[in-house]
Order: sequence, then C-alpha cells, then structure tokens
Amino acid sequence: MRASRPAVHPVEAPPPPPTVAAQAQEQGQGQGEGQGQGQGQGEGVAHPRGVRMKDPPGAPGTPAGLGLRLAQAFFAAAALAVMASTNDFPSVSAFSYLVAAAILQCLWSLSLAFIDIYALLVKRSLRNARAVCIFTIGDGITGTLTLGAACASAGITVLIGNDLNICAENHCASFETATAMAFISWFALAPSCILNFWSMASR
Amino acid sequence: MRASRPAVHPVEAPPPPPTVAAQAQEQGQGQGEGQGQGQGQGEGVAHPRGVRMKDPPGAPGTPAGLGLRLAQAFFAAAALAVMASTNDFPSVSAFSYLVAAAILQCLWSLSLAFIDIYALLVKRSLRNARAVCIFTIGDGITGTLTLGAACASAGITVLIGNDLNICAENHCASFETATAMAFISWFALAPSCILNFWSMASR
Repeated sequence: MRASRPAVHPVEAPPPPPTVAAQAQEQGQGQGEGQGQGQGQGEGVAHPRGVRMKDPPGAPGTPAGLGLRLAQAFFAAAALAVMASTNDFPSVSAFSYLVAAAILQCLWSLSLAFIDIYALLVKRSLRNARAVCIFTIGDGITGTLTLGAACASAGITVLIGNDLNICAENHCASFETATAMAFISWFALAPSCILNFWSMASR
Repeated sequence: MRASRPAVHPVEAPPPPPTVAAQAQEQGQGQGEGQGQGQGQGEGVAHPRGVRMKDPPGAPGTPAGLGLRLAQAFFAAAALAVMASTNDFPSVSAFSYLVAAAILQCLWSLSLAFIDIYALLVKRSLRNARAVCIFTIGDGITGTLTLGAACASAGITVLIGNDLNICAENHCASFETATAMAFISWFALAPSCILNFWSMASR
C-alpha cells in the first residue's frame, strides 16, 4: 500500500517533465504577460507548490522594476546635483562620501535600468540564477553605501542646523535636500533588493 | 527519443516521495543536530533539489545563531557604555541617536538570544513561518537603525577629528570606539537577518 502510494493518490505523484512540444506551446501562451513562467517550467521539474508567484511586480524585467530603477537613479542624481551645487561640500568628508555614493548608486541603477529595458523589449525574463545573485549582491552593497552616506550627511546636517545653529553661514537647505534625496533613493532601492533576494532564495 | 528522456537519463528524474517508514528513520537520525530536517521532510513532498540546507549554521535555534545574537548584544552594549561614558554626548543629536539605537539593538538581540537558548534547551526548531517573519522584520528594522546611527556617528567623528581637527577638546577616542562597536554589532546582525530572510523566502 505504501510502496504504491503515488499510484493510489495520483495527486501527490510528481508530474512527468513536459515534452518539448508542450513546452513550446506553453511558452507561446505565456509570452504576453508572464515571461518567467515558460522558463520556470522549462527546467524539467514542476514546482510542487504552484501558488508561489513567479514574477512579482517590481522584480527585474518588469515595468515596475524598471520604474524603481529609474526612481533610484533619478533621486541619486538629484542628491548628487544638489550636493555638488554647494561650493563647500569637499570640506566635510561625509558630504564628499555622499557624492561618491550617489555617483555609484546612479551608475548601478542606470545599468540595471538598461538591462530591464532590454529584457522588456525582447520579452525575456531576468529570472536567471546568476543574474539575480549579481543583482542582489550589487543592490545590497549600493544600498548599504547609500544608506550610510545619507545617514552620515543627516548627522552632519542636524549637527549644523539644530545642535550648533550655524545655518546662516552654511548651505543648510542644500545639505538637507541632498540628504533627503539620498534617503528617497535608498527607499526606492530597498524593494528591488528585497525582491531580488526573495526570488534568489525561493527558487 | 525526447519523450523517453527521463528514462534514458535517470539522473534527471525526480525522486519518489519517501515512505513513512523512511521518514521515521530519518527523523530518528536527524534528532541530534539538525532539528529542522525532520520537519522539512515530514510535509509529504520531497523537495526536487535535495541540496538545499534546512537549518544552516547561524539560523535561529542553532548554537551559531545564539552566538551571533550574543555578539550583537555585547557590541551594542559596549557602544552604549562607551558613548554614555562621555559627558557631552547629549549635545550632539547623532550621538544621542546612537545611544537610543544601541539600547534598542541590545534589547532585541538579548530577547532573541533568550528565545534561542530556550529552543536549544528544549531541542525545538524555530523554523516557524510566523516566528521567522517576525525575526526578519525586527532584524531589518534594528539593523537599519543601528547602521544609520553608526554612520551618523562616524560622520560626526570624522568631521571632528579629520575635518575640523578639534579632537583636543572632545572625546574623540570614545566617539570612535563607540562608532566601531556599533558597526561591529551591525556586522554581527547582518548574517542573522540574511539567514532569516533566506529561510522565510525558501519555504
């Protein structure tokens, strides 16, 4: 009885890998909206828990993911521009570090935005194990650097504005704006990083 | 040829679900060190990729996880003690924030250390979906706060020590030590957070 359990309860038996003809049919159907489905089923093993979403909005290769990347790049560029518009930012290490982190964040997000645009144009899924791993590690590193730079600048800005009250002789408004833009860029990066890590861990 | 591929290459065929007798045998064997193994296999569905670790070292409920929690709590307490030993930390907002974040980090890590000790004593696995979710969210929040506080303090410390060169009239050594302790506490928190998130996503 126990040895023949998969035959008695056919629901629990692992389904056979789909044939090539069935794969081609499924890929043709899922071409429009769910680009990750065809790749996921093409690995020869059907996932036993079918309720798991394969390409959540915000993941790489989706329009929401592209929007997040563009938002990260835009706010990082805004932080960079506002901070660089002050003439005395090199005198404070934290502000120089913010500029460097914003440049790195902007380049990284723009690169991934181009990859997303390419994936959307050719309708390919980006659920590749190595690509998702690289995206997650890069997101983690740039996110940590951006958060660190934003927090360091916030500490200095609060020191200048609230603790020492020397805003009259400093560009407090510019410093605060650049810090806020860096924080917003980090807030836009966090969902990308979490979604990438989630799809890396859940495969 | 292609329809009979799993029979020609038997390595790619998914393994049949284990029988109840085999499950009981495996649970008896894995009782000593890998407490998550029996739970994962008892769900009646054999995972198609058997290489996935179920309770990696550092996860909650393991001795390494308990060590990470104790390290977090110890370094957060050290940062708190060193910063509180200076008499002028309340005059800088970032240093007060570091004290608050270190208190929160210390309380959170100590709470989870007690939960880990309990799980180790009663030999129960902590791979409960809701518990892991709470651990992950709490780790993420306390980790972000601790990193932010450490970076803000580092920005101020570098400003005082390197940019303004007024270390003579400030407790630069204490500030630097407290900042370093907060960073070490965050470095000990990061593996816990990543492992919790991984086990939340991979179930």
